[in-house]
Amino acid sequence: MVEYHQSRLDLVFRALGDHTRRAMLQRLSQGEQTVGELAAPYRMSLAAASKHIQTLERAGLVKRTVRGRIHYCRIDPRPLERAEGWLRGYERLWDTRIERLVELLRHPDNDSTDTE
Amino acid sequence: MVEYHQSRLDLVFRALGDHTRRAMLQRLSQGEQTVGELAAPYRMSLAAASKHIQTLERAGLVKRTVRGRIHYCRIDPRPLERAEGWLRGYERLWDTRIERLVELLRHPDNDSTDTE
Repeated sequence: MVEYHQSRLDLVFRALGDHTRRAMLQRLSQGEQTVGELAAPYRMSLAAASKHIQTLERAGLVKRTVRGRIHYCRIDPRPLERAEGWLRGYERLWDTRIERLVELLRHPDNDSTDTE
Repeated sequence: MVEYHQSRLDLVFRALGDHTRRAMLQRLSQGEQTVGELAAPYRMSLAAASKHIQTLERAGLVKRTVRGRIHYCRIDPRPLERAEGWLRGYERLWDTRIERLVELLRHPDNDSTDTE
């Protein structure tokens, strides 16, 4: 189960590691788009755009519906929520710094970080 | 500037797209580790572990300090914060669903999503 989640999270983060795919998700967050509409703004072939969309599909970020001859794509935000959940586990690393800074401003004499 | 941020974010998300690298970050979040310590739990060569660490360094997620002959690694959480910031832009996609569900439970007759 953990194994499954780990490899799914691999796919999600890798899918997000490309600005064209992030831009596609940005546009899909506004609503459903056809594969042709998604490909249109980029100087790339429909085949190249399709490959990006397939990467997003494998990560579970995009769902495709075929109506007639048209392929419609919509975003599935659930994997984004899980990726954010993973990152949230690290929030304390930057939040702690802010807390320490606030503490230091309140008690300038006490700059020890080794508190019991 | 935006271009720079986009390609940096590419590196960050790609670095996160591997469970070994995420596990390394997890351990570095507890404190500094040597390259040897980071490599130890994995059935991989020191060279393979070094490659993962280099990927994390290129993404700005890990800083390395050399003291004597020992290489020490520590986490830099700032790129994680930026990645979370990007994901946070999509929170409304899952939050909106919850809002709609609450609205639907309150007013079961009004399940239209096309509100002015």
